[in-house]
Amino acid sequence: MDTFLRNGKGILLAYDQGLEHGPSTDFNEKNIDPNYILDMAVKGHFTGVVLQKGIAEKYYAGKVPLIVKLNGKTNLPKGEPISSQVCSVEEAVSLGAKGVGYTIYLGSAHENIMLQEFGEIEEAAHEEGIPAIAWIYPRGESVKNDTAPEIVAYAARAGLEIGADAVKIKYSGDPKSFSWAVKSAGVAKVFMSGGPKAPTDEIFLNQVKGAMDGGATGLAVGRNVWQHPDPLKMATGLQEIIFNGKEVQRALQLVVAQ
Amino acid sequence: MDTFLRNGKGILLAYDQGLEHGPSTDFNEKNIDPNYILDMAVKGHFTGVVLQKGIAEKYYAGKVPLIVKLNGKTNLPKGEPISSQVCSVEEAVSLGAKGVGYTIYLGSAHENIMLQEFGEIEEAAHEEGIPAIAWIYPRGESVKNDTAPEIVAYAARAGLEIGADAVKIKYSGDPKSFSWAVKSAGVAKVFMSGGPKAPTDEIFLNQVKGAMDGGATGLAVGRNVWQHPDPLKMATGLQEIIFNGKEVQRALQLVVAQ
Amino acid sequence: MDTFLRNGKGILLAYDQGLEHGPSTDFNEKNIDPNYILDMAVKGHFTGVVLQKGIAEKYYAGKVPLIVKLNGKTNLPKGEPISSQVCSVEEAVSLGAKGVGYTIYLGSAHENIMLQEFGEIEEAAHEEGIPAIAWIYPRGESVKNDTAPEIVAYAARAGLEIGADAVKIKYSGDPKSFSWAVKSAGVAKVFMSGGPKAPTDEIFLNQVKGAMDGGATGLAVGRNVWQHPDPLKMATGLQEIIFNGKEVQRALQLVVAQ
Amino acid sequence: MDTFLRNGKGILLAYDQGLEHGPSTDFNEKNIDPNYILDMAVKGHFTGVVLQKGIAEKYYAGKVPLIVKLNGKTNLPKGEPISSQVCSVEEAVSLGAKGVGYTIYLGSAHENIMLQEFGEIEEAAHEEGIPAIAWIYPRGESVKNDTAPEIVAYAARAGLEIGADAVKIKYSGDPKSFSWAVKSAGVAKVFMSGGPKAPTDEIFLNQVKGAMDGGATGLAVGRNVWQHPDPLKMATGLQEIIFNGKEVQRALQLVVAQ
Amino acid sequence: MDTFLRNGKGILLAYDQGLEHGPSTDFNEKNIDPNYILDMAVKGHFTGVVLQKGIAEKYYAGKVPLIVKLNGKTNLPKGEPISSQVCSVEEAVSLGAKGVGYTIYLGSAHENIMLQEFGEIEEAAHEEGIPAIAWIYPRGESVKNDTAPEIVAYAARAGLEIGADAVKIKYSGDPKSFSWAVKSAGVAKVFMSGGPKAPTDEIFLNQVKGAMDGGATGLAVGRNVWQHPDPLKMATGLQEIIFNGKEVQRALQLVVAQ
Repeated sequence: MDTFLRNGKGILLAYDQGLEHGPSTDFNEKNIDPNYILDMAVKGHFTGVVLQKGIAEKYYAGKVPLIVKLNGKTNLPKGEPISSQVCSVEEAVSLGAKGVGYTIYLGSAHENIMLQEFGEIEEAAHEEGIPAIAWIYPRGESVKNDTAPEIVAYAARAGLEIGADAVKIKYSGDPKSFSWAVKSAGVAKVFMSGGPKAPTDEIFLNQVKGAMDGGATGLAVGRNVWQHPDPLKMATGLQEIIFNGKEVQRALQLVVAQ
Repeated sequence: MDTFLRNGKGILLAYDQGLEHGPSTDFNEKNIDPNYILDMAVKGHFTGVVLQKGIAEKYYAGKVPLIVKLNGKTNLPKGEPISSQVCSVEEAVSLGAKGVGYTIYLGSAHENIMLQEFGEIEEAAHEEGIPAIAWIYPRGESVKNDTAPEIVAYAARAGLEIGADAVKIKYSGDPKSFSWAVKSAGVAKVFMSGGPKAPTDEIFLNQVKGAMDGGATGLAVGRNVWQHPDPLKMATGLQEIIFNGKEVQRALQLVVAQ
Repeated sequence: MDTFLRNGKGILLAYDQGLEHGPSTDFNEKNIDPNYILDMAVKGHFTGVVLQKGIAEKYYAGKVPLIVKLNGKTNLPKGEPISSQVCSVEEAVSLGAKGVGYTIYLGSAHENIMLQEFGEIEEAAHEEGIPAIAWIYPRGESVKNDTAPEIVAYAARAGLEIGADAVKIKYSGDPKSFSWAVKSAGVAKVFMSGGPKAPTDEIFLNQVKGAMDGGATGLAVGRNVWQHPDPLKMATGLQEIIFNGKEVQRALQLVVAQ
Repeated sequence: MDTFLRNGKGILLAYDQGLEHGPSTDFNEKNIDPNYILDMAVKGHFTGVVLQKGIAEKYYAGKVPLIVKLNGKTNLPKGEPISSQVCSVEEAVSLGAKGVGYTIYLGSAHENIMLQEFGEIEEAAHEEGIPAIAWIYPRGESVKNDTAPEIVAYAARAGLEIGADAVKIKYSGDPKSFSWAVKSAGVAKVFMSGGPKAPTDEIFLNQVKGAMDGGATGLAVGRNVWQHPDPLKMATGLQEIIFNGKEVQRALQLVVAQ
Repeated sequence: MDTFLRNGKGILLAYDQGLEHGPSTDFNEKNIDPNYILDMAVKGHFTGVVLQKGIAEKYYAGKVPLIVKLNGKTNLPKGEPISSQVCSVEEAVSLGAKGVGYTIYLGSAHENIMLQEFGEIEEAAHEEGIPAIAWIYPRGESVKNDTAPEIVAYAARAGLEIGADAVKIKYSGDPKSFSWAVKSAGVAKVFMSGGPKAPTDEIFLNQVKGAMDGGATGLAVGRNVWQHPDPLKMATGLQEIIFNGKEVQRALQLVVAQ
């Protein structure tokens, strides 16, 4: 995972929401354009960018290390979630990927299919010499609360067990319970999932600070940056916490700085 | 997609309705004959023709660039729609295809199967050096209105994300909302889907004009041309809008011209 | 398909009912024996014989061109029909097949599986240089009347679209509607399916005559020949219609001749 | 099948009940031991022995020709029966198999999966030059009576059609109806399935005699031999009927002889 | 299996509960760390250690022979259990495995899928020259009591039949019934499954003693060792029973010794 880290920490710019949620939910006239986002990834000093293969193939210019998401789904179908592989590891590598990502809906009735696909992807990725990163989201009828500490830790641990080099998991609400998730992940790196735009910057920065205090390696963030009125300042604020270990108030100053 | 464009715009003649809807619904004694349609494609100056492999193999004469549709279904089965691959990219190429098409019923309970098949097709097509074109039709119980602006834009964006070089989507009802779909598709070319025969020529030409004003690359049209009393005049009218950017009234004059 | 035609017409002797319906329903002490049928195929001047691989391997002697049926099912399971491939194109060729057959239950909830298997078979068959023949039987809950003209025509057209060189379809009840099915099949040859033993010879001969008048290439017949008291005379009568274009009364004279 | 026949007749010792029914139902302290059974196969002059791959690999000593059963299931799951392949033809051959067996639950909702697997097995077996033997047991909700003459004959015929060199079917109750099943199987050899331990030796010997009179090639027997108080005498009695065509009373004398 | 035995007996340290049950259920701050467990495996003189591939890849140091579990699931999904393969035999070998493990939920509606996967794994493992070990747990709606003697014996026998070199099964409650399971497993080695932490040490040691008296080869144990206040003493106590055949009271003295 070193490719995606700076002094052992990382901040990944995620931009696969066009497939996962649709452009009308998350996007506006500016951030609908992949070039705008890729430019932001460079100027915002992100340590990695996460794209589906289509955007990688048609827009990626190679300046920030690339993670290609290998599966994806829309938010239209009801029922137990399943997200199938749409890109091979080989294709991802040919598009310039230095890592691959795959989402597992742990607890879904189709969990076994996704665990199996990830198992094959991990093997192929490691043969290619690149990390396999698991987005692990407990979901489905059997999952009542996907940010409960024990379920977040389960996600982290499942990632370690099946060979993920890093896991992207939701924040469990406080540093102490998140540190248990980090401990459960062992040597697998833990990235907090940014999730939907938080009500205020402070709330989001507090979550990130909590995750870092809990031992996270970093953050995979999309909407809380590129839906922000000033994405680069938000990026700066986040990095003040992630890389420099500063407090939320200090980060907040950078975000609102003129 | 340049093979299928003239000055950056395109008009594709689609003729796979025999499988999708059956011959009795859409066809008459003349247009049931593939030779009649292929002749129309040449004389009507279409920039591409879309066929299933059987008709491609037995009728295609090479004059208009060929897109082979790689999947298909009948309209008989009820339940969540699924259309499976019936032709490989390799076979399509051997039949003279310069592009391949595949339908994804976004939102279907079987969406993941079609996304996965398209993913493999995209990879194979790009290895062959030809474009992969996605017919993206949101459909199934979870889709209430398949021409709602946000759902049309979702279709367009999903196409870009999964690697389509062009998407064929329905018209969203007005140029403004369609332009959002086009923007969502990014560098993937957007073709408006002609759909069933419109009540009047004017209505249909207005849709096409709206799509072009919204930024579409062109039109994939079947029934509104070959069910027309004078298909070649209709083709001329459409091209006046698509290639020359003319108004609907001007196009309408060409359609009804003696 | 020329291998199976004489002056452009053909009569195929079908003998796969042992798997499809069981020996007790359709067979008697004589016609249960494949040698009896293969002898009949030779003496009756059939232009082809249709067998499952087991009978082909153990009985076929090479005198009449062979079509191996590649899929099959029993009539025992309830629910939406599905018939899976039990023989590869390669194995069929090794058994002496000059053509392969495959049944598609159009409209079944499993339609997509069969369309996909046929697609692969068509590709393999054409690589081997032999025709792929589709038995297309609309069936399942969504099909109310499988001999309705529009459904028979749909079957014929679907065959053409997916690459069948010939289709075997049911008779639609009259020459006019059958001619629409034939037209829908384009250059794909149309064989009328004989179906279960008709109440009288005249009724069956009238159906065959109607199909031929509608433009059929010929007949694929089993039970109406080998359940007949005098199969060879029935074969002679049928051929009088199929190859010589004679009227039903003339054919009937041959069937009942001493 | 000659490997498994003596003067054209055969008696196979079947010992796969440990997987199919569990050890507690069918076995005792002696016959739970595969060595005991394999010793019995030698001393009892069986013409073949039927084992799952695990027992073949760990116990089989090569003295009696081996058939490896390639699929199997437990009797625990409810619902429509399915038995999937657990051993490849290649593995079976490497374990010394001179033939392979596979069970098809004809009439099950999963019939098509088993027919398809058997189709591939038959092809692989014939490439290896060994026979493919089908255990054909009509079963599932659609099968009311699995020993009804017409259903037993259907099983036999289905085996012939899909390429089985021999079929193992249940006894239909009388020689006349069983002879129809044998006739339906054509050149495929018919082995009567021994089934569970019969109430008396005479009843079982009568069934075997009936099957042989009906034209069976022989018997595949397990529990009626190795659950017998004196398995070798039972084997002798059975062979008196099978190979020497003797009456039940004569066989019975051998079974009860001191 | 000799690699995992000492004088014909074995004690395997199982540590795949992080995937099967989640870290919050079974783990504490110490045993959440794979290094702690691997250290315990060395110091506790275990004859083998069982890991999922992720932990094997990132922590395994080669001192105790390794078994990689090839499938796994979480305890989140409801419904009939299925655990799919997430690691190939080849990958396991590349991680240093000297044996592979796979769980089969016998009696599940998905039993056939797991039997089939195990069948392929067994073949691949034996080609690699390493043992295939089956965790056989009867489970699902059709299984009322998974420690009933007849169901435990069924599990053992199923393992032998499908080619397992060793089976891991639950304790059936008493030595006599367990000896029947051992006998049913034939030459396949039988390891008692440790299961969840027993209420008292004595209860657990009694189970182990009972299994050994019943003829078990040894024990696969996780939580009853690494959730124990003094894991190494517990390991010593267990080995006194397993390797030295001592009584429970003697073992208990070692466990509580200062």
